[in-house]
Amino acid sequence: VEFRDLEIAVVGARGAVGSELLALLASRGVAATRVRALGRAASAGQRVPFGAQQLELRPADTAQLSGAQLVFLAAGAEAARELAPMALDLGARVIDASSAFREDPQVPLVLPEVNGGRLRTSRSRLVASPNCTTTLAVLATDPLRRAFGLRRMVLASYQAVSGAGRRAMDELRRQTAEALAGRTTAPQVFAEPCAFNLFSHDSAVDPHSGQNLEEQKLARESARLWGDGETAIAATCVRVPVLRVHCLALQLELVRPASEEEVRAALDGAPGLAWADDRELNRFPTPARAEGRREVLIGRLRPDPSLGRERDGRGRGFGLFVAGDQLLKGAALNCLQIAECW
Amino acid sequence: VEFRDLEIAVVGARGAVGSELLALLASRGVAATRVRALGRAASAGQRVPFGAQQLELRPADTAQLSGAQLVFLAAGAEAARELAPMALDLGARVIDASSAFREDPQVPLVLPEVNGGRLRTSRSRLVASPNCTTTLAVLATDPLRRAFGLRRMVLASYQAVSGAGRRAMDELRRQTAEALAGRTTAPQVFAEPCAFNLFSHDSAVDPHSGQNLEEQKLARESARLWGDGETAIAATCVRVPVLRVHCLALQLELVRPASEEEVRAALDGAPGLAWADDRELNRFPTPARAEGRREVLIGRLRPDPSLGRERDGRGRGFGLFVAGDQLLKGAALNCLQIAECW
Repeated sequence: VEFRDLEIAVVGARGAVGSELLALLASRGVAATRVRALGRAASAGQRVPFGAQQLELRPADTAQLSGAQLVFLAAGAEAARELAPMALDLGARVIDASSAFREDPQVPLVLPEVNGGRLRTSRSRLVASPNCTTTLAVLATDPLRRAFGLRRMVLASYQAVSGAGRRAMDELRRQTAEALAGRTTAPQVFAEPCAFNLFSHDSAVDPHSGQNLEEQKLARESARLWGDGETAIAATCVRVPVLRVHCLALQLELVRPASEEEVRAALDGAPGLAWADDRELNRFPTPARAEGRREVLIGRLRPDPSLGRERDGRGRGFGLFVAGDQLLKGAALNCLQIAECW
Repeated sequence: VEFRDLEIAVVGARGAVGSELLALLASRGVAATRVRALGRAASAGQRVPFGAQQLELRPADTAQLSGAQLVFLAAGAEAARELAPMALDLGARVIDASSAFREDPQVPLVLPEVNGGRLRTSRSRLVASPNCTTTLAVLATDPLRRAFGLRRMVLASYQAVSGAGRRAMDELRRQTAEALAGRTTAPQVFAEPCAFNLFSHDSAVDPHSGQNLEEQKLARESARLWGDGETAIAATCVRVPVLRVHCLALQLELVRPASEEEVRAALDGAPGLAWADDRELNRFPTPARAEGRREVLIGRLRPDPSLGRERDGRGRGFGLFVAGDQLLKGAALNCLQIAECW
């Protein structure tokens, strides 16, 4: 079966991730006639862009899902829990971008570059795409883990508001315009103001461990993707006033010592990664540089001065900075790649 | 000698740090007649606020520095290298906010809460105030270092543009307004766009180590402040689109294991620190919460899940998040506290 010959449904087609999915499908040459843009009943009849064309938004119900062979769910966890069983009963394959099934042992969690083989070994017709922060962290470090082993990752994130959806992006723009005009408006999407501000990630904090849900997801999902519990993670997840690209500051501890050149060689040409690493010009991964790019940018590779080096200059500690478009590789593009692998 | 009875000069009085210094002096009850606001000759004659009053800006030259007993230099490293010897020759005590003398072994580098005793043991009439990132990191962790020892600190910074001065703050506002209007303008202060963007710190990157100057300063200045080389630091310094508060995500490794309660008790009531640490309401240190506050906010204290715990629950690893007004404790307030200690 060719990917383009399938009947495809995108649920959440007006949302931040859904609209990127439609754009990617159009850019892959999928015909508009094969794609159904689905969303809330209240929005039915509206038009959504599909490349240069438009699609009419229809309600995400049994009638509209019926006959779809491939369903992308990009409408949040609650909608996914309702619609995934419905679409599976109707015979479709389902790829969910939400957190609803990421920890379900029956459902493969897939980052194609890392564990794409799971798509061949699993019989599940439902596949989950990992959390965006997990995707960037695991994609950027998997080549090092394969080459040298990865004992520990200390991560601090700089996460765009797009992770909280289109309304959050509107809120950042609106609040920023208000702030520039000397006014303040009460936040609606986030509990904290986001204009010229940043704050600990807006997910619930576990009262016992002190970790927020984003940090817990990162630990649990990366353990599922890697499958062996080798890598311990300490993370601090933070929202910054950026629209759609997440950045990560990583300090990595390898199992086996390596030289900087060996680490660089292991990352060179790894699937899905591209360098932005110019010390002379001080050009490294940034949101502006990563926005709209399918590759995840890596740079600032450097030895960790706080961990020892051996006599031959090899060491276990390295710093790395990562920037990836949260809406592309962090969500929509990964869902599409899962479909293509399948 | 009472602080208020001194003849005081503030050099760089129109700048981001200098104007905060004037505001702090006014709030301390210093009379306007005792304060000289100095700056570039080209700006002489302009008026600068001093509390509810105004001062006339005069050129920073021998004539104006003559007779000043206490000189605050807040005009950058280049001006400091020229004016500090001049002011010392004229008999003044000098406190420099720039990097010019921070690594000079003849000049004490002072964070009063940490090594204020240096002001009594040194005969130098010139004192340097540490880099803002160093100030926040050392102030927030010094109580833990005293109580348990601090072996290693992994730090990722979220630094406001104010660290690059008033022009950088203007650039962020202007670029953001342009971005909201759908236009882009070429950056002037920074090499990267700053509206809705972030980037690796805008200081030169060492071609060999890969560390930028801000990261090197942090390592060298904290070693000077602590004086014993116990603490190894791995840092990633990043500019974010925030106006005046720096934040730090820290992962700390103590020398001696401690429980979370013991760590909390050690930080409780420490000078210059205040808690913002509410897991239930997800309220932690933010720029908005720290702006204009003299205390540095700390929160998100939690055990590091990537480092082991002992049977009694004690461990060496802890996470902490810090937010401090870069223009206050990160610069102007620390200079004033040095003067008060003196």
